[in-house]
Amino acid sequence: MAAEPTAADLIVKHRPTLDQALEAIRTRAYWSPHPEHPKAYGENGSLDLAAGKSAYDALLNTRFELDQPGTDGWVGGEVSPYGPELGITYPHADADVLLPAMKAGQKAWRDAGAEVRAVVCLEILKRISDRSHEFAHAVMHTSGQAFMMAFQAGGPHAQDRGLEAVAYAYAEQIRTPGTAEWSKPQGKRDPLELHKAFTPVPRGIGLVIGCNTFPTWNGFPGLFASLATGNAVLVKPHPRAVLPLALTVRIARDVLTESGFDPNLVALAAERPGEGIAKTLATRPEIRIVDYTGSTAFGDWLEANARQAQVYTEKAGVNTVIVDSTANYQGMLANLAFSLSLYSGQMCTTPQNLLIPRDGIDTDAGPKSYDEVVADLARAVDGLLGDDARANGLLGALVNPDVKARLEAAASLGEVALASRAVTNPEFPDAVVRTPLIVKLDGTKPDAESAYLSECFGPVSFAVAVDSTADAVALLTRTVREKGAMTVGAYTTDASVEAAIEEACLEEAAQLSLNLTGGVYVNQTAAFSDFHGSGGNPAANAALTDGAFVASRFRVVEVRREG
Amino acid sequence: MAAEPTAADLIVKHRPTLDQALEAIRTRAYWSPHPEHPKAYGENGSLDLAAGKSAYDALLNTRFELDQPGTDGWVGGEVSPYGPELGITYPHADADVLLPAMKAGQKAWRDAGAEVRAVVCLEILKRISDRSHEFAHAVMHTSGQAFMMAFQAGGPHAQDRGLEAVAYAYAEQIRTPGTAEWSKPQGKRDPLELHKAFTPVPRGIGLVIGCNTFPTWNGFPGLFASLATGNAVLVKPHPRAVLPLALTVRIARDVLTESGFDPNLVALAAERPGEGIAKTLATRPEIRIVDYTGSTAFGDWLEANARQAQVYTEKAGVNTVIVDSTANYQGMLANLAFSLSLYSGQMCTTPQNLLIPRDGIDTDAGPKSYDEVVADLARAVDGLLGDDARANGLLGALVNPDVKARLEAAASLGEVALASRAVTNPEFPDAVVRTPLIVKLDGTKPDAESAYLSECFGPVSFAVAVDSTADAVALLTRTVREKGAMTVGAYTTDASVEAAIEEACLEEAAQLSLNLTGGVYVNQTAAFSDFHGSGGNPAANAALTDGAFVASRFRVVEVRREG
Repeated sequence: MAAEPTAADLIVKHRPTLDQALEAIRTRAYWSPHPEHPKAYGENGSLDLAAGKSAYDALLNTRFELDQPGTDGWVGGEVSPYGPELGITYPHADADVLLPAMKAGQKAWRDAGAEVRAVVCLEILKRISDRSHEFAHAVMHTSGQAFMMAFQAGGPHAQDRGLEAVAYAYAEQIRTPGTAEWSKPQGKRDPLELHKAFTPVPRGIGLVIGCNTFPTWNGFPGLFASLATGNAVLVKPHPRAVLPLALTVRIARDVLTESGFDPNLVALAAERPGEGIAKTLATRPEIRIVDYTGSTAFGDWLEANARQAQVYTEKAGVNTVIVDSTANYQGMLANLAFSLSLYSGQMCTTPQNLLIPRDGIDTDAGPKSYDEVVADLARAVDGLLGDDARANGLLGALVNPDVKARLEAAASLGEVALASRAVTNPEFPDAVVRTPLIVKLDGTKPDAESAYLSECFGPVSFAVAVDSTADAVALLTRTVREKGAMTVGAYTTDASVEAAIEEACLEEAAQLSLNLTGGVYVNQTAAFSDFHGSGGNPAANAALTDGAFVASRFRVVEVRREG
Repeated sequence: MAAEPTAADLIVKHRPTLDQALEAIRTRAYWSPHPEHPKAYGENGSLDLAAGKSAYDALLNTRFELDQPGTDGWVGGEVSPYGPELGITYPHADADVLLPAMKAGQKAWRDAGAEVRAVVCLEILKRISDRSHEFAHAVMHTSGQAFMMAFQAGGPHAQDRGLEAVAYAYAEQIRTPGTAEWSKPQGKRDPLELHKAFTPVPRGIGLVIGCNTFPTWNGFPGLFASLATGNAVLVKPHPRAVLPLALTVRIARDVLTESGFDPNLVALAAERPGEGIAKTLATRPEIRIVDYTGSTAFGDWLEANARQAQVYTEKAGVNTVIVDSTANYQGMLANLAFSLSLYSGQMCTTPQNLLIPRDGIDTDAGPKSYDEVVADLARAVDGLLGDDARANGLLGALVNPDVKARLEAAASLGEVALASRAVTNPEFPDAVVRTPLIVKLDGTKPDAESAYLSECFGPVSFAVAVDSTADAVALLTRTVREKGAMTVGAYTTDASVEAAIEEACLEEAAQLSLNLTGGVYVNQTAAFSDFHGSGGNPAANAALTDGAFVASRFRVVEVRREG
């Protein structure tokens, strides 16, 4: 049996990666230590495709043991959007027992200091990375993402976001030195002298409230930001997406134990159907930080009611793409078609409103009328998804019946430019797989507003005809200000139009992608380089990840003494 | 007439100071560019003692013109705690006119970038510094501070705190580069390439709600942190302490104008008696940041109601000193006597509860009983303040009749160990000058709790007899957790006691000063080195100044384009 890693071992092992991450967030150039190709796994202890599948299969229809204090029952009812029941039960916790137990190890975790906390977090991420193939299945069968997306977004990309949060947390904590000698001159008299010590101290327990669609990608930043700043972390997964975060909690507890810390610094709070424990937990006095991804209604509730905590929310928004003109018409159509299709539009970053001048646009293929642009886009989506195998690989499955109902209702909101089509998944015949719906709306008709000014989460886009690009910019501004946006896209060859759109995005704090025609899509962001959300419009009060995301998760206590 | 400074001139002039400030907040060694000796002023354009007094006198009984949009009347009724009416009136603003006008210049201010904003802020601070003698009188005759304290705390120390906030704001904004070239390898295919631009954007308008006792020292951090991060700033002074912040606003407007920006980026909101405009302003949609120093009740109200804004509060607390043992009994007594006396205890950092074991303490002068310690401290205060001229120089005047009433009522709370004495101020016979009151309380008597567990703001201290030092630590913990604390002090020669007190302060996030017996006092903090408050206990939700104080005042907007 190998000796367990000491903190010093972990520093030797992970400090170079931490340093690279610190450099990456400073330069924001491309960097990732987590390979995104599935075939890169299988050596040096990592699971390959087959081993990952076996590990996942072995979890099905079992009790997921975590050995947590206060376990008072077993709960679980996950059903894969692809059909099968997972049959896994998780410990249900008595918060009155679990929360005090989570506090017990905090002093040692605090005293370990920022560097040790960072490398313990990196060891957790390394073990998660080694099991990316296992996580891929867990994410696929809880979110409905197709396998490749579940592997990449749920694996290496999520791990990148977690590591990014650790890097920011570490950098923030070492901005103040551990000690300082202070000597103030007093003219001819002796100087005043003090010895000062500065210690980052945690706020308390962080609560991570997970979401259904991206349990790891949206869960890791808050989890690792809170843990790396000295807090214990309680993970409350979405009841339909427990497994990816339960695996995360188990790995974290193992690493904490092996490196000499209390495993209860990280714990799981699974819930009974309809129990709604998020509200109860989020307002407990022990909970001092909340990270949440989900509906605007509950995000607003948390911000208003979890007043004892720092609350970081990512809520709903309405994402806009302005189509003014392009020098690469086919590239634009292909890029947009992919963005609308990926994961059936079930991303907080998927474009919803495509604002197109009713008099048409200039392109490298000549002028195109509004109708032509919409028809060409519909054709591009059809072409992309014409082959069922490829469609299944891009679309994944609808995550829940609400999305399907919303999609079906949306067809009556206007003229259908592209009907949604059911795709059969031969491997999982119960999966509900749908291609995107595109509906034409007239942006000047007041009765269309209720459609395009509401989030219609799922594979639904509106091709909104506007009188001019200037009107499009005005509508963009209004949409972001009133509804929020995680992303904005725009296509234009006109410098003054580009400047106007940029100004609108700077004014409303929205993240803008311009003229994407290749292999980068408006709905994808890369850790260490792109910010996810801005924290400055109603879609989210935080960005992944910046200084503001970590700076309030700890406080600095100063002890000063005469020299 | 000299040419007006360009942004480039200001960079040349102030960049070295900014760099020194950045280094100081990194090392936290002693540093200040603002001399604290009154005689250091009078050359290179700064006002000396006489010129400062003349400048102040010239302001009395005049209209304080600011040329702000939306001025709909003139208000003012400041009466010096030393007696004289100031007779100054200030513009009263129609917020519906002023707030939109303040937004007009924000785009240019945002586009100027972090460095230009920083050096414009440094120019404002430089001009304030040159007029430190004028500010000293303004602070003295609004706060009641004695002249020397008004000069130092209201002048150079406040300027230090402002500069510190500018340094943090600048450092935070440049953590993300202005641009990045992102190139993601794609195996044998061409890499994905994007050009990315990152711009710090302001939240909107910051509101600074000033306090009566330290208008500049507590007002500058929020004002400069918001301005340096691109926000416009509306300053709402305490109705009894308008002048120091009105002078600040005027200087800021002059510097903004001269350096090519809109003066309305900084404006004053004076109010009619009883108008209570802070509530109205703090909840306006244009106000996205609030900085507040004052009562817990209104601070809590702001946190609960100004939900559209980031709210930074410094509220009330109950500060404790544990007296366990000392190797310098006379030094301890002298240090505590000074701390209790300075500005008649009207500091948020003044110790209130002195926890002393009822069986006495060990000292270098032999064991001392509880009664002896209290009597010796009373004698030390008497000795310090025995001379009326010295007493006036230390105590200043009571800031308002509430403090006097509270002091008078406190004498009946327990056995009086040191009675408060009225001191005559020959220059200002109407000034209400009082020496500190020390009341003995039994910490084990439940009826004493209501006294020592409430803030009794003013020259009132409680010598609380406790059964043991362990009980003192437990009471310290309870006091900080329930009531908050800006400062904690302790005297001990016992390493295990010291460790227990340190642990209590780390656990409750309270700033601790140990064994101060010389010329540094528990109620004083130095910018660039000491944190003021921790932001982690109920006394304040923010610390002056750290990353958390600046990081949420702006957001970063990313614009990415194909390369």
